[in-house]
Amino acid sequence: MSQHSIAIIGVGKIAVDQHLPVIAKNPAFRLAALVSQRGIEQAGVPTFRTPAELYAAMPDLDAVAICTPPSVRHQVALEALNAGMNVLLEKPPAPTVSELADLVRQAAARRCVLFATWHSQYNAGVEEAKKRLAGGKIASLAITWKEDVRRWHPGQEWIWQPGGFGVFDPGINALSILTEIAPEPFFVTAASLTYPANRDTPIAARLTFASDAGLPGAALTAEFDWRQTGDQTWTIEIALEDGTRLTLIDGGSKLAVNGDLTVAEPMAEYEGIYARFAGLLDRGESAVDAAPFHLVADAMVVGKRETTDAFEW
Amino acid sequence: MSQHSIAIIGVGKIAVDQHLPVIAKNPAFRLAALVSQRGIEQAGVPTFRTPAELYAAMPDLDAVAICTPPSVRHQVALEALNAGMNVLLEKPPAPTVSELADLVRQAAARRCVLFATWHSQYNAGVEEAKKRLAGGKIASLAITWKEDVRRWHPGQEWIWQPGGFGVFDPGINALSILTEIAPEPFFVTAASLTYPANRDTPIAARLTFASDAGLPGAALTAEFDWRQTGDQTWTIEIALEDGTRLTLIDGGSKLAVNGDLTVAEPMAEYEGIYARFAGLLDRGESAVDAAPFHLVADAMVVGKRETTDAFEW
Repeated sequence: MSQHSIAIIGVGKIAVDQHLPVIAKNPAFRLAALVSQRGIEQAGVPTFRTPAELYAAMPDLDAVAICTPPSVRHQVALEALNAGMNVLLEKPPAPTVSELADLVRQAAARRCVLFATWHSQYNAGVEEAKKRLAGGKIASLAITWKEDVRRWHPGQEWIWQPGGFGVFDPGINALSILTEIAPEPFFVTAASLTYPANRDTPIAARLTFASDAGLPGAALTAEFDWRQTGDQTWTIEIALEDGTRLTLIDGGSKLAVNGDLTVAEPMAEYEGIYARFAGLLDRGESAVDAAPFHLVADAMVVGKRETTDAFEW
Repeated sequence: MSQHSIAIIGVGKIAVDQHLPVIAKNPAFRLAALVSQRGIEQAGVPTFRTPAELYAAMPDLDAVAICTPPSVRHQVALEALNAGMNVLLEKPPAPTVSELADLVRQAAARRCVLFATWHSQYNAGVEEAKKRLAGGKIASLAITWKEDVRRWHPGQEWIWQPGGFGVFDPGINALSILTEIAPEPFFVTAASLTYPANRDTPIAARLTFASDAGLPGAALTAEFDWRQTGDQTWTIEIALEDGTRLTLIDGGSKLAVNGDLTVAEPMAEYEGIYARFAGLLDRGESAVDAAPFHLVADAMVVGKRETTDAFEW
């Protein structure tokens, strides 16, 4: 295992809260630089204003972690691949399905590692749930992902703008757990999408799925809602054919089996992400799970639109 | 080149109008059977009520052409792949992005040929336009796809139901030409989607693209409208950096270069489809261009929804 030099592009909240501290404590990585339009600095490493300046100054850099807003991620990632960099992408990996598919092709053509991260997949309960689902049949699935948009995205207008994903911004985390643990792929067969009268993205959504992992006639659903005040709910409940009940709680960090808490660990999502990225870099392998993003696009394609009260902060 | 036995699954209008006569005149194929729930028959070949009956009776069949409605295409295709069949899919190849991606994986795992057809790609002007675009830069692109839904889809309620695609049903034909001729991929950056007040799919759409094939700042747009009476318009106008103007007319069957009609041939879309399928079967190769479908999904993801007058037949 070699040590990999890495730069962070886009030094916003997620980079400061997660990427920088996790890189600092992982000996497989050495933080080499930051790229920040606003000139955010950290002692001991240079800050560049643009990726082009970074690549010109440090052509031997191993990798970049792209933490910019999603809208520019394809362009920034392509520039990185063209500079020969290995690339880690924050979620969602691109603004559109087409741009993600293009990045996969471009990375393969350049023999660069491309890693699309889905942070929720790294919670402790997820791996155990996957093990217990392997080979089993699902009698029912109920995803409930209800949170308060005012608490988690205060004043962030971009979430309501076309392409801003709306409630699918948190909902895709649940879908990324589903695609990770499911023994067979899931497909969206119907969806209702609830739009505030004055906004361009949904504030709530309800999805119905089909899957060969489910028993015939099984109810397979997801409910996303951004209007929940008080307690927040990020739960995936699965009943298996043999009667076993699996409940992923708190976004996957806890797993109850038949009501008994079996896994309960502190969230360590980004530790898991960087441990996996180190392995991918060592082996020269890419890992891009497009399935969560495809499910969101499919919900928008098949979804029936409904209108609800206007949303104001 | 060997002769391939083939069965048609779903004997509706497109099978009768196109697939059956084209198979009959292509010596690379031998029509072996029909599958028709309604029991539609053709002299000289057996009709089965279900695909399962077909595969039980004819396990050595080479291929099936799936001409059912799109909503069941994934399920019917998967059943065919599981029976070891090579598969031709009518457009659109599946109801969702996820189902198409799944079919690609499943066909590869079973070493079966999977061919997703986009009939508009086989018009005579398309290949010539592709040649003239190769290596060039696009100064402007204007797709205009305007037709009368009452003429082309009389009384077909499914086009207005969630997942029915609406005006993207014809629009995806234009996008399939774009993805075929473009020297670099196109991405949807913005879209407006116009829904009748009483319907669940758009009656009109306007898309804006970005592409490395375009000059910086180039206007790259598509306009789809189902409300055009009288003359129908299926045109793609492209201006190149060197001043050349390419105009694909009548869905791609004609090409004008700087106003002069350079290619004008009768439509022979399905002849082209089956000629290509024969080659794919001979070589054991799949051909699935998911890009047109991805662009539609992306337009739904980034699109701004607008409401217009209710639509009644």
